[in-house]
Amino acid sequence: MRFAVAHVDGATGARTGEITTSRGVVRTPVFMPVATRGAIRALPFRDIIEMGFEVVLANTYHLYIRPGTLLLDKAGGLHNFMNFHRPVLTDSGGFQVFSLSSLCTPTDDGVEFKSHLDGSRHFFTPEKVLDIQKSIGSDIMMVLDQCTAYPVEMDNARRAVSRTLNWAERSFRRWRDAFDCDRQALFAIVQGSVYPELRVECARRLTEMDFPGFAIGGLSVGEPKDLYREITAVTLEHLPPEKPRYMMGVGSPMEILDAIACGVDMFDCVMPTRIARNGTLYTSAGRVNIRSSAYEEDFSPLDAACGCYVCRTYSKAYLRHIYRMGEIAALIYNTYHNLYFMKQFMNEIRTAIDAGAFSEIYNKWAALYGNNGG
Amino acid sequence: MRFAVAHVDGATGARTGEITTSRGVVRTPVFMPVATRGAIRALPFRDIIEMGFEVVLANTYHLYIRPGTLLLDKAGGLHNFMNFHRPVLTDSGGFQVFSLSSLCTPTDDGVEFKSHLDGSRHFFTPEKVLDIQKSIGSDIMMVLDQCTAYPVEMDNARRAVSRTLNWAERSFRRWRDAFDCDRQALFAIVQGSVYPELRVECARRLTEMDFPGFAIGGLSVGEPKDLYREITAVTLEHLPPEKPRYMMGVGSPMEILDAIACGVDMFDCVMPTRIARNGTLYTSAGRVNIRSSAYEEDFSPLDAACGCYVCRTYSKAYLRHIYRMGEIAALIYNTYHNLYFMKQFMNEIRTAIDAGAFSEIYNKWAALYGNNGG
Repeated sequence: MRFAVAHVDGATGARTGEITTSRGVVRTPVFMPVATRGAIRALPFRDIIEMGFEVVLANTYHLYIRPGTLLLDKAGGLHNFMNFHRPVLTDSGGFQVFSLSSLCTPTDDGVEFKSHLDGSRHFFTPEKVLDIQKSIGSDIMMVLDQCTAYPVEMDNARRAVSRTLNWAERSFRRWRDAFDCDRQALFAIVQGSVYPELRVECARRLTEMDFPGFAIGGLSVGEPKDLYREITAVTLEHLPPEKPRYMMGVGSPMEILDAIACGVDMFDCVMPTRIARNGTLYTSAGRVNIRSSAYEEDFSPLDAACGCYVCRTYSKAYLRHIYRMGEIAALIYNTYHNLYFMKQFMNEIRTAIDAGAFSEIYNKWAALYGNNGG
Repeated sequence: MRFAVAHVDGATGARTGEITTSRGVVRTPVFMPVATRGAIRALPFRDIIEMGFEVVLANTYHLYIRPGTLLLDKAGGLHNFMNFHRPVLTDSGGFQVFSLSSLCTPTDDGVEFKSHLDGSRHFFTPEKVLDIQKSIGSDIMMVLDQCTAYPVEMDNARRAVSRTLNWAERSFRRWRDAFDCDRQALFAIVQGSVYPELRVECARRLTEMDFPGFAIGGLSVGEPKDLYREITAVTLEHLPPEKPRYMMGVGSPMEILDAIACGVDMFDCVMPTRIARNGTLYTSAGRVNIRSSAYEEDFSPLDAACGCYVCRTYSKAYLRHIYRMGEIAALIYNTYHNLYFMKQFMNEIRTAIDAGAFSEIYNKWAALYGNNGG
């Protein structure tokens, strides 16, 4: 994996670049649709390809539980299994172990947990989650980290950082010794909750190792927006500018713009697809709740400025009708539109950065999406 | 609407033909996907167009309840509302009133019922369901009929036929007097349960009126297969061969083949999409239950002989995995495949009839689908 910065905005930290993997080039800043278990929720993969997404995210924890590494090995990896041959990034499963499993006991060696599906007991170590990601065959792998909820006391956050650093060292050694490092890159994860000194310490210590990329974990978990921006900025100051930066599990249009302004390159989030299934749609005029009776007789397109086939084909009145009737087609159309929106949104941001117009774009979207968390 | 028979099979009553409507030509025998509320369940309309379906069915009862005729009038009819401009057939709502609504009181004048959604009271008359279908703008409308369950005593079936005939006369007059008969055709419905003399009487009386087409209602509702075939055959003997015949709510591959052998031209059924959502898939080798553990490590296509994009793209192991995980994408892929199968199935039947090879095709499918009800 190689990364090259193309342009850096004069007024902010926003930048464009390219990640080159053996399965293709990813232009950054990039939004990665989430295919947790090897499928995009409520959308065929061919729509993802048609929209031009260059990379998707899958989940190590979920794929380990089902279908499991034995099956993935037999299938020749996740790309072959789901027949999608563009780059795939996998998170480490750390976040899911700490948030989904019914029992979770971290030790210095790793973390024991119970499957959320059948209650079976499992043990993840930094080495094991890499081996799982080898079976998955992801192009970009993530290290196992210890996640903390928000809020968390500083002592607990410090212990999580300490363990995250120790696990990162073990991950780095395993990766260097046992992986085709050119084919499967490994990113470290900065933790430290909302404590700047912990974030700085974590970023500096991780940077001492030659990871191909760095992620910020544990943000956008309930902290105030000011803290989100402050912690993002201070963390990035201590990460090497020549490496890609990935904000995990983020997010809304404004969270993405705020992070891009600090110099973040990569994003993933279930929000666009999840809110789509709840009837909330991103448009060039702000958010639309398609369930609203305001649209009962509105035969105009969902977003006249959007080129997606849903906006070219259906009215708000129709989309509202089929959503209210519980039609699965409504979930498909809503999901299609929101992901198409995210793709165009990122395209517009990259074009603006390259043209030196990031601040204008930022202000445009802030006026539309700034007040409601967008 | 015009109908022309092209070829009639030498050994059976099977025939090909063309229905010409102002919105396009429908080659028969035809299977009509069901868009009850103006959406195909679990599939975007563009896939229906891509597969080449020439006509879909929508439901008068459901569209009357939601979104209602006021909205359909404002939308300029259902075609504009759902932006699908090929022919649409609407059933009359009779079947739904008698099967779905919580209270249903038929009188000679019409039928009072409570909405299954909100319990509100409504009254359908033969004239009113035509007026609703005028708001819908369907290319082929159906008369209101009185449906009977199976089994039903002959006296009750006779009373239902009597009322169905009376309502058909009123429907014919309303249609002739108040409709653009070239743009919106009207089909009568033969009732009579499994009593040949009632079916014959109903068919003969309806034929005395110059309906553009005739439907068979009240079959495939639980009666033995022999009775299904016998009643279909005896009914068709008393329907004019120059008019299209439509078997309502049918069905499985073998039910369709049996009816085609008697001379039926049109079919609709939710079965292909409903069983798809339940994991049952039609293939050229018989039915496949994709949930089966037999497919856990089966990396071959669902149906290697099928040209649909699901079969060209995904393995049985992958389809099983995402179905088990509850992914909506599994419902989409399964639905796509089963409807594609139905389209190819009908294409093959038409080609065989034109080539004088219907019996071979019938026997081929009977060997694959005859034993399990297909």
